[in-house]
Amino acid sequence: MAETSLDMTKVALIQMRCGPEPEKNFSRAIEFIREAAGKGARIVCLPELFRSQYFCQTEDHKNFNLAEEVPGTSTAAFGELARETGTVIIASLFERRGAGVYHNTAAIIDRDGKLLGKYRKMHVPDDPLYHEKFYFTPGDLGFQSWNTQHGKIGVCVCWDQWYPEAARLTALRGAEIIIYPTAIGWHPSEKKEFGKAQHSAWETIQRSHAIANGCYVAVANRVGHEAPAGGAGIEFWGQSFVCGPDGEVVAKASIDQEEIVMADIDWSRVNEHRTHWPFLRDRRVDAYSGLDRRMID
Amino acid sequence: MAETSLDMTKVALIQMRCGPEPEKNFSRAIEFIREAAGKGARIVCLPELFRSQYFCQTEDHKNFNLAEEVPGTSTAAFGELARETGTVIIASLFERRGAGVYHNTAAIIDRDGKLLGKYRKMHVPDDPLYHEKFYFTPGDLGFQSWNTQHGKIGVCVCWDQWYPEAARLTALRGAEIIIYPTAIGWHPSEKKEFGKAQHSAWETIQRSHAIANGCYVAVANRVGHEAPAGGAGIEFWGQSFVCGPDGEVVAKASIDQEEIVMADIDWSRVNEHRTHWPFLRDRRVDAYSGLDRRMID
Repeated sequence: MAETSLDMTKVALIQMRCGPEPEKNFSRAIEFIREAAGKGARIVCLPELFRSQYFCQTEDHKNFNLAEEVPGTSTAAFGELARETGTVIIASLFERRGAGVYHNTAAIIDRDGKLLGKYRKMHVPDDPLYHEKFYFTPGDLGFQSWNTQHGKIGVCVCWDQWYPEAARLTALRGAEIIIYPTAIGWHPSEKKEFGKAQHSAWETIQRSHAIANGCYVAVANRVGHEAPAGGAGIEFWGQSFVCGPDGEVVAKASIDQEEIVMADIDWSRVNEHRTHWPFLRDRRVDAYSGLDRRMID
Repeated sequence: MAETSLDMTKVALIQMRCGPEPEKNFSRAIEFIREAAGKGARIVCLPELFRSQYFCQTEDHKNFNLAEEVPGTSTAAFGELARETGTVIIASLFERRGAGVYHNTAAIIDRDGKLLGKYRKMHVPDDPLYHEKFYFTPGDLGFQSWNTQHGKIGVCVCWDQWYPEAARLTALRGAEIIIYPTAIGWHPSEKKEFGKAQHSAWETIQRSHAIANGCYVAVANRVGHEAPAGGAGIEFWGQSFVCGPDGEVVAKASIDQEEIVMADIDWSRVNEHRTHWPFLRDRRVDAYSGLDRRMID
């Protein structure tokens, strides 16, 4: 295991396909993390709900059987792996919290194997083929950051990525990189007409979080066409990426291949950027009170 | 004057150079608005502080003489012009509110010539060559929108464009287009190394406001190299643009020419976009309380 630099950290995003067998996805995820660590990665993030195909395409009570406790079997295995490889691991899991209470949860595991904390997806979507409100209770742990042994990280999940409030609160809590496990793609029938604009909007708004908050942003998406319940399914659009504090994309994956996206995080750029573009200095905290309203009408 | 469609409105951004003589800038602004109206524009926006060169490059008490009352001479002239041309006019003015209290203010004038309201720049920068904190008292009218006879518009000014909070509050108040008079450019010594990334960040974050809020965004910048106080000055980078609710740029000006940027605003796209990408539906207003803090540490 290479020694850690205080100034630079290599982050890896695992862009992977997810098949119908959870155990197989899980063991492949382990292999990917080992490979990333071998290449020097010190923070590794898996895509959203990587253990299974994206079951939220339909509302089916049987899918609740995919859930697990957090901490539980998965976090124990990742804890061991983190210790072995010296990596911080972000693992998106389907959490069974109690009878009838399930969350879309990211586990944050430090390099010593300790489960540092959990992020429970705060913004939960419900759209055709993304029936998440059926499965997931909205998160109740708020927006957080964790001072890992490899850097100050924040984690949000998928739909959160559309909300500047989520990124801002995560940054205000100290995150210098905001990491998003995600599962987003095209409805095949819409791809031709709207696909380019949809992807552009998705990349743009996440780059904007980096700009607004002067921090890094890293997004791990899945790839592949999944139609587990028949129908046209979703073509997950890959293109996992890392961008710097000025919003420039510094590493980006393909649209359709499994790959490990690696980027060097230069932590000094966060302070430099926030000093040269002092947006945090000038926030009008006295005038933001309406942000907790649905509309101001 | 063409009749107004209920569904579509043509917006025009006046990208202009600003010379050392305020009266000349003012009369050229009037000409540009007449020309835009002649081409069918119904909402017209001038760049930030178009009446003068960008005096904030230095701290000089003499520059306070450039200020005027709002309402005052300028808004009276624009009121007449609005009535004559049937346009809504957004005019950025250096407001003298009272002894020692000055604002960077946008006047919003309806098509009947009425001064609908004022927006006083809320986020005030202070950076090398942008010494605005010396001149401008922070705005105290908050983030607003106005139901003009040509559409529901919100107005913020320049530095506000970096703040998702400003765009969000403006949208929550009903704006379906957010319009930014601005004055931004390169320090010539930085342009080669950082110019591309700086411009990209600027365009990206404003596109992100359109995406996050499912509304149009329109930005009127000045062009030209100004060094009124000697020194290298600022190369204002033009590139005024309009983008749609998905963040796609639908009209954009050059980097160095005076021009009128025109775009058709299809108001139905706002509701359509907000329904298909229902970000406003899923905001976690119960969990945003920390947004009124500097840091959460």
